[in-house]
Amino acid sequence: MHDPTSVGLVRAQRAEFDQPLTLQSGAVLPSYELVYETYGTLNAERSNAVLICHALSGNHHVAGRYSPEDKYPGWWDNMVGPGKPIDTNRFFVVGVNNLGGCHGSTGPSSLEPGRNEAWGSRFPVVVVNDWVHAQAQLADRLGIDCWAAVIGGSLGGMQALRWSVTFPERLRHCLVIASAPKLSAQNIAFNDVARNAILTDPDFHGGDYYRHGVTPKRGLRLARMLGHITYLSDAGLGGKFGRQLKNDGYRFGYDVEFEIESYLRYQGDRFADVFDANTYLLMTRALDYFDPARHFDGSLAQALSATSARFLVVSFTTDWRFSPERSKEIVKALLDGRKSVCYAEIDSQHGHDAFLMTDPAYMRLMHAYLNRVADEVNPR
Amino acid sequence: MHDPTSVGLVRAQRAEFDQPLTLQSGAVLPSYELVYETYGTLNAERSNAVLICHALSGNHHVAGRYSPEDKYPGWWDNMVGPGKPIDTNRFFVVGVNNLGGCHGSTGPSSLEPGRNEAWGSRFPVVVVNDWVHAQAQLADRLGIDCWAAVIGGSLGGMQALRWSVTFPERLRHCLVIASAPKLSAQNIAFNDVARNAILTDPDFHGGDYYRHGVTPKRGLRLARMLGHITYLSDAGLGGKFGRQLKNDGYRFGYDVEFEIESYLRYQGDRFADVFDANTYLLMTRALDYFDPARHFDGSLAQALSATSARFLVVSFTTDWRFSPERSKEIVKALLDGRKSVCYAEIDSQHGHDAFLMTDPAYMRLMHAYLNRVADEVNPR
Repeated sequence: MHDPTSVGLVRAQRAEFDQPLTLQSGAVLPSYELVYETYGTLNAERSNAVLICHALSGNHHVAGRYSPEDKYPGWWDNMVGPGKPIDTNRFFVVGVNNLGGCHGSTGPSSLEPGRNEAWGSRFPVVVVNDWVHAQAQLADRLGIDCWAAVIGGSLGGMQALRWSVTFPERLRHCLVIASAPKLSAQNIAFNDVARNAILTDPDFHGGDYYRHGVTPKRGLRLARMLGHITYLSDAGLGGKFGRQLKNDGYRFGYDVEFEIESYLRYQGDRFADVFDANTYLLMTRALDYFDPARHFDGSLAQALSATSARFLVVSFTTDWRFSPERSKEIVKALLDGRKSVCYAEIDSQHGHDAFLMTDPAYMRLMHAYLNRVADEVNPR
Repeated sequence: MHDPTSVGLVRAQRAEFDQPLTLQSGAVLPSYELVYETYGTLNAERSNAVLICHALSGNHHVAGRYSPEDKYPGWWDNMVGPGKPIDTNRFFVVGVNNLGGCHGSTGPSSLEPGRNEAWGSRFPVVVVNDWVHAQAQLADRLGIDCWAAVIGGSLGGMQALRWSVTFPERLRHCLVIASAPKLSAQNIAFNDVARNAILTDPDFHGGDYYRHGVTPKRGLRLARMLGHITYLSDAGLGGKFGRQLKNDGYRFGYDVEFEIESYLRYQGDRFADVFDANTYLLMTRALDYFDPARHFDGSLAQALSATSARFLVVSFTTDWRFSPERSKEIVKALLDGRKSVCYAEIDSQHGHDAFLMTDPAYMRLMHAYLNRVADEVNPR
């Protein structure tokens, strides 16, 4: 069945980079690969390219399906497609799996060059800025000097923000959604509990579980269960699950009693079956380390001073992981630096996850903003 | 050194109950013991007794020290003592370790009668109402027909509330602090993650780890780390730790980088060394199950209809575990039932833990309220 608003069937592509990449930690990746997908057509001026940066558990598969039988489309299929807010009739859209990921780009579960086993514990810690540098290599490869927009939610928003610091002239627009200029102590604390669940799982084996034929599923499951709570709002969970029981009456034990427990455990199990624990560690640490103002005397306005990009910052009312207050810190820094910025706080019950949801006001906003961007780069 | 505001040196006492106790689950405890402490003197009318109910990780050691060398006094020593808000010059104060605890009262780590090993997985799940029934047995033993006040914070507040439902004529005043009428889906979700950390620890052995000479420390440590985050406020953690680093600069790894990580892990380690994992499971499940309105068509006002107790309900502005909104649900039920209730929302940065802290406004409030109670039961 043809869906005219879908990008349809898609295929992942692969780019190999043989030039060493020096990471912010000082470690050097001798070579690496990035998997990516593209939708739409790059115009003759190469000016209509949009980069989608993914969040903690995301990847390059942003929209479309790999086969007609695919149960689920890409993770932002509601946002990306013909006539959708990120309109593939007008934009050339690029999704890329970040370095350290577990969906095809070089990461801890990839074979280490010169060894016949996975990188495991030897894979270096990467930070958001390393991703941005790797994404820039991919942009070079694709012949994209300047993105029409770099767009991301949550950890993806941090990448968008970092682009405007590291490559201030390589993006026209920067869309930072449900994000923060840096983590709070509470944010770091939640990440630390999640990481400790993995690090202390006896099946973790110091990060080299691949060679033991096991994975630290218990820890990864706990990490995901905990993460999941922080992605949703108290009100949202209350509305969806409340104190609804799985069975009739209390069973007086530690098995599932409440629907919310059933849901959480299911989410944890599903995630632990498919995601790599080392990648989870790495992604959460990149979150912790993110602080673009750090080398500018703590001034985000200073960090952003060189860019001529225009900004859209979006937050959601019930997001308590990265609350609207955190987005306003970004907006304030932009205003302090006399940058062009639009800010919207969307009323939603979906907490942090709202950035992935199809909320009419949010979709209208994205559509309107990106329509203007498309007009700029695709003169009619 | 004599501190005139301390109850001084104290000793735990033990009460044995040979009558079977039928629990709400239907399980029967053939016999049980409760450890408790008392401070102050019971007056001739036996009317000045105050029961202190403890929260998740608390116990009967509310105030004073066991020896002059004790580093820490009881957990509510700032609240209980001569001249303090719960004034031991005027009240006879009782602290009791709840059934299922791990500080001396019968619990999963106690020897099971007729067996030469700990109860472990065979110890029944208990609910708040079971604790109230056991506490009532202790009151009978002490000759206390009616408490001047039953007082508790958090899970302790739920016990106080439950007293006014189960034994509506056995308390004059009910002080419910930083509590809630029942858990939200988010509350249950956090508990479920904590319990799953313990249940999936390979050292848990289905709850019978005692016989294996191990304890599920990894799981208990994670549970405590997570719990700790929810006891504190984002703002409080930000003020105390912010993004402060443990070392100079980033080390790019998964060891402690931020002070908040160091603090959390320390709290987790210390707790896992001294607390029993089965008790942790049991206490969190008692929280989940608490819902006194459940057998009254969901009406808390109905549940509380029989009591003539007067109420003080206290909440703290930055408590997001049991927010002021939750306390207001209790207040509303009391007002709907035309009960006498005072409500105070205390401005504090300490989150849920504020109920244990020495905040001047909070202390003044407690002092003023309990002074009036003392006047009622100790005619001058």
